[in-house]
Amino acid sequence: MSTPAIQDTYPDNYSHCYGCGRLNAHGLHVRTFWHDGASLSEFTPRPEHMALPGYVYGGLLASLVDCHATGTASAALTAAAGLPVGEAEAVRCVTARLTVNYLRPTPLGPVLRLHGTVLEQSARKVVVAVSLRADDVECVTGEVVCVRVPDSFGL
Amino acid sequence: MSTPAIQDTYPDNYSHCYGCGRLNAHGLHVRTFWHDGASLSEFTPRPEHMALPGYVYGGLLASLVDCHATGTASAALTAAAGLPVGEAEAVRCVTARLTVNYLRPTPLGPVLRLHGTVLEQSARKVVVAVSLRADDVECVTGEVVCVRVPDSFGL
Repeated sequence: MSTPAIQDTYPDNYSHCYGCGRLNAHGLHVRTFWHDGASLSEFTPRPEHMALPGYVYGGLLASLVDCHATGTASAALTAAAGLPVGEAEAVRCVTARLTVNYLRPTPLGPVLRLHGTVLEQSARKVVVAVSLRADDVECVTGEVVCVRVPDSFGL
Repeated sequence: MSTPAIQDTYPDNYSHCYGCGRLNAHGLHVRTFWHDGASLSEFTPRPEHMALPGYVYGGLLASLVDCHATGTASAALTAAAGLPVGEAEAVRCVTARLTVNYLRPTPLGPVLRLHGTVLEQSARKVVVAVSLRADDVECVTGEVVCVRVPDSFGL
């Protein structure tokens, strides 16, 4: 992964997200790297991020899927505009619909790796598939409908 | 809501969840109250739980939907067993599939109220619908497939 994280190129006013904002001091700081049309993020949960002893909390996994997907969508829209992902100021996306499938309990301890791929893309909407693996075993899949932040937000 | 929260009656080994475990010192402490076959939870996000300035982070909303739904499922299974919800030790459920629809941005500040209803129920599986409102406006809906924790967890 040769470029900076896509979240590093969000405008400041869009960088306060608890999941992925570089300016949120208390946040998770999910970072999404884009390479050749796909994305990767790595995250190590903290000990308190448990569901049952030894397993990762599903709400945290949903958060990782969510922010990795919106980051992937942002990268895809940036790339589609002919701009260099990780250098140009990125388009910001939010989530319209999040679906997470918990295939098996996710062990707490190993680094989690999330791979993102674009399923559909238009100027306004990107649908992203996410696969989350621990110790190279797929534990979670997700599908996220991401939409470009409307100008009406006015930040 | 006349009974204690369903999460107060989870066995100790199942009470460490980051979202709703009473024994997780760093967690969110979602608490679900059951009355006449439906459920209610109230939660006030912290300032850092933002997506964009002024709006609640979608991953937190997914976490609230998740834990309120598994709490609702637990209450429904406990009630179906003829046991007093909020008094008897509760059945513990986990999430198999989580779907969250973000209908509009959720304002950061007001108390969020989550209502849960049971869509389907068997001895092993409960499907729960959740509606989340802020200032009495529905901002998020969810549907959660919850399954009873298998004995193979062995906690």
